[in-house]
Amino acid sequence: MAFQIPRGTQDILPGDSEKWQYVEQVARELCSRYGYREIRTPIFEHTELFLRGVGDTTDIVQKEMYTFEDKGGRALTLRPEGTAPVVRAFVEHKLYGSPNQPLKLYYSGPMFRYERPEAGRFRQFVQFGVEAIGSSDPAMDAEVMALAMHIYEALGLKRIRLVINSLGDLDSRRAHREALVRHFSGRIDELCADCQARLETNPLRILDCKKDRDHELMATAPSILDYLNDESRAYFEKVKHYLAMLGLPFVIDARLVRGLDYYNHTTFEIMSEAEGFGAAATLCGGGRYNGLVEEIGGPEMPGIGFALSIERLLAALEAEGVELPTDEGLDCYVAALGERAKEEAVRLVYQLRRAGLRVDQDYVGRKLKAQLKAADRLKAAFVVMIGDEELDKQIATVKEMASGEQTNVPFGELVSFFTERTRREGE
Amino acid sequence: MAFQIPRGTQDILPGDSEKWQYVEQVARELCSRYGYREIRTPIFEHTELFLRGVGDTTDIVQKEMYTFEDKGGRALTLRPEGTAPVVRAFVEHKLYGSPNQPLKLYYSGPMFRYERPEAGRFRQFVQFGVEAIGSSDPAMDAEVMALAMHIYEALGLKRIRLVINSLGDLDSRRAHREALVRHFSGRIDELCADCQARLETNPLRILDCKKDRDHELMATAPSILDYLNDESRAYFEKVKHYLAMLGLPFVIDARLVRGLDYYNHTTFEIMSEAEGFGAAATLCGGGRYNGLVEEIGGPEMPGIGFALSIERLLAALEAEGVELPTDEGLDCYVAALGERAKEEAVRLVYQLRRAGLRVDQDYVGRKLKAQLKAADRLKAAFVVMIGDEELDKQIATVKEMASGEQTNVPFGELVSFFTERTRREGE
Repeated sequence: MAFQIPRGTQDILPGDSEKWQYVEQVARELCSRYGYREIRTPIFEHTELFLRGVGDTTDIVQKEMYTFEDKGGRALTLRPEGTAPVVRAFVEHKLYGSPNQPLKLYYSGPMFRYERPEAGRFRQFVQFGVEAIGSSDPAMDAEVMALAMHIYEALGLKRIRLVINSLGDLDSRRAHREALVRHFSGRIDELCADCQARLETNPLRILDCKKDRDHELMATAPSILDYLNDESRAYFEKVKHYLAMLGLPFVIDARLVRGLDYYNHTTFEIMSEAEGFGAAATLCGGGRYNGLVEEIGGPEMPGIGFALSIERLLAALEAEGVELPTDEGLDCYVAALGERAKEEAVRLVYQLRRAGLRVDQDYVGRKLKAQLKAADRLKAAFVVMIGDEELDKQIATVKEMASGEQTNVPFGELVSFFTERTRREGE
Repeated sequence: MAFQIPRGTQDILPGDSEKWQYVEQVARELCSRYGYREIRTPIFEHTELFLRGVGDTTDIVQKEMYTFEDKGGRALTLRPEGTAPVVRAFVEHKLYGSPNQPLKLYYSGPMFRYERPEAGRFRQFVQFGVEAIGSSDPAMDAEVMALAMHIYEALGLKRIRLVINSLGDLDSRRAHREALVRHFSGRIDELCADCQARLETNPLRILDCKKDRDHELMATAPSILDYLNDESRAYFEKVKHYLAMLGLPFVIDARLVRGLDYYNHTTFEIMSEAEGFGAAATLCGGGRYNGLVEEIGGPEMPGIGFALSIERLLAALEAEGVELPTDEGLDCYVAALGERAKEEAVRLVYQLRRAGLRVDQDYVGRKLKAQLKAADRLKAAFVVMIGDEELDKQIATVKEMASGEQTNVPFGELVSFFTERTRREGE
């Protein structure tokens, strides 16, 4: 009998999990510098949340959701993205009534899309994201982008690029949509079946098609930037102004439309340009969603956010050869020879742990030499050795592994010996 | 249109999420002191993993699983517990071949059981757990229990009790099972339908019945402790010896059989005895599972672990009135008056964040007075005020909120002013 992990998912084992912890810790710490606080929503939601209104026309919602009925007959869906659940919670808990506006939230957790598994693409993947709800200040857009870039920079990525666009307000989008329909409708049969369907439902998404990206109609398609009305154009100018003021370089790509229907005004992506990492890998995507709170049952309120994939972030770090400063080693390994010494070791290990140290010992009856090897594998900074002689004298032999230097330390002084050397704090 | 959270699940909002972070951080830090490293497994597994072999007879597996088919027709189940997935990963990645034995792992994440929602009982809940695989040393059992107790103590809980039992090895369990069948079979019709079924499938679980717990047959039922063979008894004595040596008080409860079928030898629970928290709330449960690795397709290998509920841990902290030292406030709020000052504020806020400080500003066009109120709500330690006069002189007014004291600080010295006072580190 052999049980296997479900297709498209992964286990994260020790050695890798420390990298995840480090990356998440940096992202959390930066969120707290920027005034974002954590929200956690359930792994599943009522399916309608993702199918809401006239229906989301993106692939995510149409084809890729894990939807099931619970024993009570409710249709539930494993969340494919984080924004709708956060906005649902924002509305359900009436957070729009809070005096803290905008409300700045972040989340971190698994998302689920039933896609064909490929290198770097998983059916369960972890997104770290932020949402700032309640402000339509272009400085807010700049803050959100600055935070995303800051996370990558703090982790040591150098070859990243911020790409921005504006989809404008509803009027601008409508004018552009009409232009797109005019542009494509005469020759729509040259494009794929999905694009043909999109012409009716959401022609903007044609620009996002992976199959037809090189068709000549794509390059000549009307640019949203030519259809922004005065207000939308002024907003976009302000966003660019603030980015420049913060010293954040960016490029504009009028074809950046993002994979979710609710965006307007600013959209952005952060791409990795690391070699051997594919032509242009998107690490992070985000944008404004000024109609979404209302659509989910709240008052009219603007919002903006981003989501980044931890899997892709780790892949980009690897592609750039960045070593994360994870700390996996033990402070001390207590090696014991004989039954009496084992008892003393159990007591000492516990004392040292209470004092704040990372300590371990043998639990499989290894001989002394094998215990020293185990200490080495566990990257112990020190080994305490206890045998009959040490027991009789109540003095342990302590070896510093890096230097090989040995010291004799009375049992009663071992705790202070190590707390002084490691600066750990206990209890 | 109003979207609601699925029944039996909860959102964790800012104000609470900091408590979750704190508790998880303490548990992680203690795991690292004890030499446990994190493993992360997927949210769902193939259903067979939980239904394996002759079938688990516990309620969890029989009635409470979230099971569904994915689009490929595979039966998947949202994990109801953490041990089987960790052991699946241990076997699948052949971690039994690692020289680091025992392999000491911890996990933290949501689990799912379709139960009737009650106060403190959720359909999605978070378990923090450890598994030590590869040692049958009774000192290992003591370590696992010491770690669980240490987590509660480090968080400030006082009214907790460690309850232990032994189910013995297979032979002991078989002898006890026969005694149980003899004891109950004559009068089984006095017990509930579930108990009647359990007489066939797993009579040990009758002792765990919530409906019949006060029936006289329960008090007189044969105790497992009277059926332990010599080896099992000696093992249990050693475990108790190590607990006593570490100064960990415990009580023995021969009826502690735990809700999962795979346990043998040591089982334990940690209960809260806080007033108003129910008669005896179980915070944590664990035990030995020496046959499980083999059952899941690996070699014969012993294991032991525990899982604790974060929801119940937080409830116990509240019941004991423990205040967690969470830190939610800003270091500094930058208040700006006028359009020019706003520009300067955006720049300064970003500079201070790069320097490691927690800083925020206004994004909704508040007047100065309302900005100061916002700073207060966000628990800012300092407020920097910038208006036309400050801009002309390039000197900001800095107010320390606790003392009300005001200082004038040149723009160019603001970063060092704050980094010195907050001891934050940047980039």
